[in-house]
Amino acid sequence: MYRREIDPAEYADAIHEMLRRGIFLTSKAGDKVNTMVIGWGHIGRIWEKDVFVAYVRRNRYTHELLDANPEFTVNVPVHGFDPKAFAICGTKSGRDMDKIKEAGLTLAEPQAVSVPAIKEYPLTLECRVIYREEQDASKLPEEIIRKFYSVEKEDHISYYGEIKAAYILEEEKAEILQV
Amino acid sequence: MYRREIDPAEYADAIHEMLRRGIFLTSKAGDKVNTMVIGWGHIGRIWEKDVFVAYVRRNRYTHELLDANPEFTVNVPVHGFDPKAFAICGTKSGRDMDKIKEAGLTLAEPQAVSVPAIKEYPLTLECRVIYREEQDASKLPEEIIRKFYSVEKEDHISYYGEIKAAYILEEEKAEILQV
Repeated sequence: MYRREIDPAEYADAIHEMLRRGIFLTSKAGDKVNTMVIGWGHIGRIWEKDVFVAYVRRNRYTHELLDANPEFTVNVPVHGFDPKAFAICGTKSGRDMDKIKEAGLTLAEPQAVSVPAIKEYPLTLECRVIYREEQDASKLPEEIIRKFYSVEKEDHISYYGEIKAAYILEEEKAEILQV
Repeated sequence: MYRREIDPAEYADAIHEMLRRGIFLTSKAGDKVNTMVIGWGHIGRIWEKDVFVAYVRRNRYTHELLDANPEFTVNVPVHGFDPKAFAICGTKSGRDMDKIKEAGLTLAEPQAVSVPAIKEYPLTLECRVIYREEQDASKLPEEIIRKFYSVEKEDHISYYGEIKAAYILEEEKAEILQV
């Protein structure tokens, strides 16, 4: 695989748009790798750094992994995704199964963090958490509480991930063909 | 003025890039309107809404206005900006002067909130705060504390502004010419 480096700001529009359908958040602690579908996330700047903010509920397996190893990758399916992989990564817990294997995904070696990228979802942000904040959902408008915190009651944690590397994974062959 | 409606996601790249140079955040309480330069901010999605997150220090006049009237506009200088306006809005406090007047800026009627847009910085997000979170800078890495919280010690407050309207202000004439 070849990593074509990108400026994350130039892809903020693509990332924002893809969040409306679902992108992937991958974490790793020890030899456990897990990925989940996310539809929430923020891209921008704080502390003079490019930072992606991920929101993870306290009861998620990803939360457990992120607190053990505060690094993650954001994996954007710019070429689309298999609905089966989406269903598995969006509804199952990595506590009960190896979602990467079940979904037929291929891990790719990371560049700046310890968490792998995903070949099938090639637009990648490698992030290191520099700040972590526990939200207080009780302060949200009633309509939002009812919609998001009445069945699952656990609040979200904001993970501010400094973007340490950003690239699109490409087949080297495709690169050569383009010459 | 004519408001050309936009999808904020399609301009997330422009907003992220412009944050590196400085964009404007405008607030209003009673008859006081104030604007400040911001280089920090996040655009994306949370609670199934398009949301801009603004970070404002506790000692800022903008913080006072936002807590009194939790609405703001983000004003992106897509056609560049006057360095004098930038210097005034980036270094002076609205407590001591009318920065809009001093900087020679022209307010434009808002569409969905009570805070005006700025004609000279036409890409506009009109936002209503739906969540407010006080950061705890003491939990940040030492390098960031030294750089941002050793001289000015006040922490930042995150204002999550639901984007209620997004547009680019244009002269109606220009629109007619394009037909």
